[in-house]
Amino acid sequence: MLQLFLKSIPLNLNILSFFSGLSEAEKKFQQEIKILTGFKPKNIGLYKKAFTHKSAHEAEHNERLEFLGDSILNSIISEYLFEHYKQKNEGFLTQMRSRIVSRESLNRLGKKMLLKDLMEYKQNVNFKNSSVLGNTFEALISAVYLDLGYQKTYQFVTNKIINPYINLSKLESTEINFKSQLLEWCQKEKKELSYSIATIPSDKPTPMYEAIVFIDGIEYQKGNGRSKKRAEQFAAEKTIKQSLNLK
Amino acid sequence: MLQLFLKSIPLNLNILSFFSGLSEAEKKFQQEIKILTGFKPKNIGLYKKAFTHKSAHEAEHNERLEFLGDSILNSIISEYLFEHYKQKNEGFLTQMRSRIVSRESLNRLGKKMLLKDLMEYKQNVNFKNSSVLGNTFEALISAVYLDLGYQKTYQFVTNKIINPYINLSKLESTEINFKSQLLEWCQKEKKELSYSIATIPSDKPTPMYEAIVFIDGIEYQKGNGRSKKRAEQFAAEKTIKQSLNLK
Repeated sequence: MLQLFLKSIPLNLNILSFFSGLSEAEKKFQQEIKILTGFKPKNIGLYKKAFTHKSAHEAEHNERLEFLGDSILNSIISEYLFEHYKQKNEGFLTQMRSRIVSRESLNRLGKKMLLKDLMEYKQNVNFKNSSVLGNTFEALISAVYLDLGYQKTYQFVTNKIINPYINLSKLESTEINFKSQLLEWCQKEKKELSYSIATIPSDKPTPMYEAIVFIDGIEYQKGNGRSKKRAEQFAAEKTIKQSLNLK
Repeated sequence: MLQLFLKSIPLNLNILSFFSGLSEAEKKFQQEIKILTGFKPKNIGLYKKAFTHKSAHEAEHNERLEFLGDSILNSIISEYLFEHYKQKNEGFLTQMRSRIVSRESLNRLGKKMLLKDLMEYKQNVNFKNSSVLGNTFEALISAVYLDLGYQKTYQFVTNKIINPYINLSKLESTEINFKSQLLEWCQKEKKELSYSIATIPSDKPTPMYEAIVFIDGIEYQKGNGRSKKRAEQFAAEKTIKQSLNLK
C-alpha cells in the first residue's frame, strides 16, 4: 500500500523537501553551509541563528553563539599552534594566536568567506567599520561545535580557514609591536594597562613626547619620542624588557 | 611455561610496578592525579610536565601546556555558562566567565586543590604573590585535554572544580565593576583603554578628581570623584551606558 502510494507521487524536489522536512530555501542554505564548513549540518536551526544579526531579530540572534564561538576558536587556534610549533615557547605562541584571532583578522576572514551573503540583517547595519562579520564568524564556529562537536570544528577551522586563508610564515615575520605585546600580557594577567603622555618642553619646532607605562596604577618605564605613539612604543618595550623580563 | 614463570614470582607491588613500567613514586603520582581529576591518566608524562615549574627544569617545564590550558579552560567555562544560563545574554555570560577565570580566581583554585604538593620547583619560587598556582592549574587542564580529550576535560572541570569550588549565585551578585566591564569589552574588541586623571581645582580640603576614558586614543566620557578610582569608575559607567550602549 505504501509502495503504491510512493509510486504514485512524482519524485520531484518539492516532494523530497516535504519528506526531509526542509523547504527549498532551507535546503539551499544547508548546501551552502556544507560548502562553507565541509560538513553536512545536522541541526540547521543552529546555523540559521548563527547568521541572524540582532537587527533582524530581537530575540533569536547570534550574540550568545558568538560568546561561545570566541572561546572555541581560541582553543582550536591554540591547539593548532601548539602542535605546529613544537619547539616554540609560550610567548611566541601567544603572539601568533593574537594575530590570528584579532578583531581585524576575524573581520577579514568573515569577509573572505562571504558570510554576509548568508546573513539576515536590517539594511542599516554597518558592515564596514564594525565587527559584524568577525562576530558572525565566531557564531558560525559555535554552531558547528554545538552541531558536530569539537573534532569536526577543529577540522573545519584547519581545512577551511587556516589552510586557505592564514599565511603562518608571513604572520611570524610581522614586526614586533611592543605596545600590543604589553597589552596582551596585561590582558592575560588581568592587569590594567594605561599610558600617560606629556609634552616635553623644548625649543625645537617638532614636539617631543614622554610616555609613562602604568600597570594597575603603578608607574613602570618611561619612553620619549617625536610622536605620542613612538614614545608609548619605547615605554612599552622598556617595560617588557627591563621590568617584566618577558624577553 | 609462562604460567609457571608467573607463579614463581611473588606478586608484590614492586613486581607490579615493574610490569606496568611505573616506579613506586610514579604509581603514587598516578593515583594522586586520579583523585584530583577523577580519571586514571594514560600518559603520565604529560601530568609530570604540567607540574614542573620552569625553575625546576629549564627545558621540560609547563609553560607551553599553560598556553593551551588557558584556552581550553576558557572554552569549557564558556560552554558550561552557555548551557547553565540559557536565558542570559552575552554580556552577562562574559562577566561571569571573567570572574571565574580571573588570575585571582585561578590562583585561589590552584591553592584549594593543593597543586603545590604535586609540583616540582626550586625553593626560591614565590607562590604567594604570583600566578604560579593558577598557571599550573591551566597546565593541568592541558594535560587532561591532551591525555583524555575534550569531553573528559569538561567532566573534570565541572565535577572537580565548578561543583565543589565555584559558587555561581555568589558570583552573580558581585557588584558591577564598570571599570573591569569596560576593560573586558575593550579586550574583546582588541581596543586600547586608558584613563587620564586630573585634579580639579577646589577650595575644599579633600581633593576632587576628573577622569577621562580614552579608547584607542579617542576621548569618551568624563567622571568626577573624591578618589581617582571613583572618578574612573564613573567615567567608565558613563562610557558603557551613554557611548557604547552596552547595557
